Amino acid sequence: MSFDRLDALCHRLDALDHAQAMLGVDEAVMMPEGSGSARAAAMAEIAALHHDMSTAPEVAEWLATAEATESDPLRRAALREFRRVHTNLTCLSSAFVARQVKARMAAEQLWRTLRPRNDWAGFLPAFRTVVELAREEAARRAEVLKLAPYDALMEQFDPGNRMAEVTPVFRTLKTFLTDFIPRAMAAQARRRTKALPRGPYPVARQKALGEAVMAALGFDFSHGRLDQSHHPFCGGVPDDVRMTTRYRSSEFISSLMGIVHETGHGLYEQGLPRDWRHWPAGKARGMALHESQSLFSEMQLARRGAFWKFALPLARKHLGAAKLKGVTTAVILGAVQRVQPGLIRVDADEATYPLHIMLRYELEQALIAGTLKPEDVPEAWDAQMKAALGLDTRGNFRDGPMQDVHWPSGAFGYFPSYTLGALAAAQQFAALKRDLPEVEAFIARGDFSALNDWRRRNVWEKASFLSTQEIMRQATGAPLSPAAFMAHLEERYL
Amino acid sequence: MSFDRLDALCHRLDALDHAQAMLGVDEAVMMPEGSGSARAAAMAEIAALHHDMSTAPEVAEWLATAEATESDPLRRAALREFRRVHTNLTCLSSAFVARQVKARMAAEQLWRTLRPRNDWAGFLPAFRTVVELAREEAARRAEVLKLAPYDALMEQFDPGNRMAEVTPVFRTLKTFLTDFIPRAMAAQARRRTKALPRGPYPVARQKALGEAVMAALGFDFSHGRLDQSHHPFCGGVPDDVRMTTRYRSSEFISSLMGIVHETGHGLYEQGLPRDWRHWPAGKARGMALHESQSLFSEMQLARRGAFWKFALPLARKHLGAAKLKGVTTAVILGAVQRVQPGLIRVDADEATYPLHIMLRYELEQALIAGTLKPEDVPEAWDAQMKAALGLDTRGNFRDGPMQDVHWPSGAFGYFPSYTLGALAAAQQFAALKRDLPEVEAFIARGDFSALNDWRRRNVWEKASFLSTQEIMRQATGAPLSPAAFMAHLEERYL
Repeated sequence: MSFDRLDALCHRLDALDHAQAMLGVDEAVMMPEGSGSARAAAMAEIAALHHDMSTAPEVAEWLATAEATESDPLRRAALREFRRVHTNLTCLSSAFVARQVKARMAAEQLWRTLRPRNDWAGFLPAFRTVVELAREEAARRAEVLKLAPYDALMEQFDPGNRMAEVTPVFRTLKTFLTDFIPRAMAAQARRRTKALPRGPYPVARQKALGEAVMAALGFDFSHGRLDQSHHPFCGGVPDDVRMTTRYRSSEFISSLMGIVHETGHGLYEQGLPRDWRHWPAGKARGMALHESQSLFSEMQLARRGAFWKFALPLARKHLGAAKLKGVTTAVILGAVQRVQPGLIRVDADEATYPLHIMLRYELEQALIAGTLKPEDVPEAWDAQMKAALGLDTRGNFRDGPMQDVHWPSGAFGYFPSYTLGALAAAQQFAALKRDLPEVEAFIARGDFSALNDWRRRNVWEKASFLSTQEIMRQATGAPLSPAAFMAHLEERYL
Repeated sequence: MSFDRLDALCHRLDALDHAQAMLGVDEAVMMPEGSGSARAAAMAEIAALHHDMSTAPEVAEWLATAEATESDPLRRAALREFRRVHTNLTCLSSAFVARQVKARMAAEQLWRTLRPRNDWAGFLPAFRTVVELAREEAARRAEVLKLAPYDALMEQFDPGNRMAEVTPVFRTLKTFLTDFIPRAMAAQARRRTKALPRGPYPVARQKALGEAVMAALGFDFSHGRLDQSHHPFCGGVPDDVRMTTRYRSSEFISSLMGIVHETGHGLYEQGLPRDWRHWPAGKARGMALHESQSLFSEMQLARRGAFWKFALPLARKHLGAAKLKGVTTAVILGAVQRVQPGLIRVDADEATYPLHIMLRYELEQALIAGTLKPEDVPEAWDAQMKAALGLDTRGNFRDGPMQDVHWPSGAFGYFPSYTLGALAAAQQFAALKRDLPEVEAFIARGDFSALNDWRRRNVWEKASFLSTQEIMRQATGAPLSPAAFMAHLEERYL
């Protein structure tokens, strides 16, 4: 009875999630600009309603009763995840959440205006407020969750992420990369590959190529579609996955890699267990596993030589053989497997990317601990960029601490998930290769069904019934570690 | 205090309306087919949540207290409309509404499959259920509203519509049309105009023409857009009006007339008073006034000779002069002012259209009264079509009683609004011409600002603060009557 009440509540909350997801997609893909404030107001109301419904007093009663009476293991697992989400929702007051949402929206809007102008001084007051509220949030959550404040923030994006485990992993990886990156760059300098032709590649043809690759990868177009937006994303709901990309007519690689990346997210969503999609336990496990699925598709599959045995003929078919004259797999790999330190995280290759993450991970911890003041962030950023990648960022706020939306929007604790996802993807691919030794031959034929079966069984169908660590252990036989990722980098780049 | 609580509730309900409207638009324009059942489930949940929130016991208390304490006339008017909506919502139980929604959805889905197959016998059982529930609904509403059952149904689409007023209006109009239609057809036979060229007119060029006409008519593209869908509609919310059309490459008139029609709906929505959009009193008044705005744009403006002085050069610009060789205003008017009895309501011209409506109006009343059985509808339909338009519909269910979505979806009482809207549009145009004698010159220049000022002041800004009859009286100096419409037909067609 109590379980059924929770089930009905989950259906209702899931309907609001469905609406919010689609309103978000529409905003990015379709909405005329003048409608932004009405849309923001509607979405804020629905978020508040969702919070009120989730934290109503009777929900706690139903939950307690259900926990005391349910014996079915699946239901008990669903209740555990419901309890976790419920605790995380109820440990902040509605008033605090409203205050925080307002500050975040103001900071994010300001950031959109001031980043192109490189105006750090103008942004700083709003950033200070957001950091202050994040510190308050961390303290409140830490008290309820019995966690360190920064751990309590990571918990929001990846349940179970703890500094005690993440820091040593990152330290190992940093030591490795410091040595590896110069060697990889020296090796690639020796290879000297031909540049790709400059097109032009019309958008409609790039889109057709992208959709053909999505279909081969297993994306279900009866439950999803591909559109265009300013920033690529994978949104929507498991039954209706909305992906976007953006196109440049001078080259087709970055758009195609973006499509493959988002397809990885999309496959995860489409592969979630049908019967539990409305329960917290039926949703994707967290940001690290989500990113592991996009990076599995992009880094482990699509930047691999075998992949282009199947994809290059497809590219010739859709873009025209004349537009790809002289392009061999080696030429493509020269473009998609290139290590080059740069200022911008989202443009970084897979070898330098973790260093961008570690920089943010360290600064965030210091900001939350209060040992780094918001006004001192640019200096700390520059010091770290110099040490990690040898790049000077002085005075360049736009491509420095103002480059990401995460801090303006108050998403502290999110960044580690990106690199943990990269590690997980490499570890999953190694385990898949162990279970399916002929994996390269499947990839070369563009036949991803056996790979997807493995992914479905080991990741997608697990949803949030298990922890990330447990999913990784069952799938790969070991807890998450940087070993497979480091081996992968050495194999690919040295 | 109570008013503020209602205001907060209205904001929240309006956010749900916003979500529902956008989910509906997305479903028609973007959604992949396989996602239909998840979408339907989400929208049904949100509808139920909306109903629960609107009818919660505390709402009745706030309303009663606010009614007893508010003295501001605008607030009192807003409370009156809130009370009306509240009464209409609370007079059906949630259980009944759920039962009805289920039956309607089943009947509508069945209808979509069976209409193309002309399968009346297969559809009949579902239709019976829908009629039965409509009769139950009518009886329940009639009791609370102290109205005749069919009046209680019309009240849902057009507050204030009563058979006692509609029937005499329709009777006058029928007498007029019986005489008028043969005379109009004889007159047009004497004129013998040239046929339009057959294109082809590419979709992109038709769309550009449509958007140019929308912009001239005053549509605000920063708060709306034009897309494509199977059935044209005007959806979305006042701050974000989403219009659709469909295109045939062999001709551009029907799509353009469709665009102008939906633009009329869109202008009404965009013109609603900004401060009250979340209150029932701030929404469009009803279906008759809504249709009066679309028909004002389509019938009163765009099928008029003056309109094509401005629109024909625009068409040449966008479609190419070569594709419109020999096309004069007279040729266009020959196409857009043509009386021709036919089986299908949505394809009917403005002179025969009301006869389609009266047929349905009479059959609906008999169905709700129980004097006509669902199984006898085809026979009654055929008899009426023979009498009204001289057409035989025996055995042709698809183009007979199965042609409209209204009955399968249980929307009994809606049809009269279409013709009342046509009468209102003609009466509004006559009043506008009285207030702005140079109106034809404005139209010929494509300058609709003075016309829109009149419409805004007299219709759009009134929203639901007044009744339809009061809005018509204030705008035109007289209650709604068929006189202006009949004069308009005589002037245009004889």
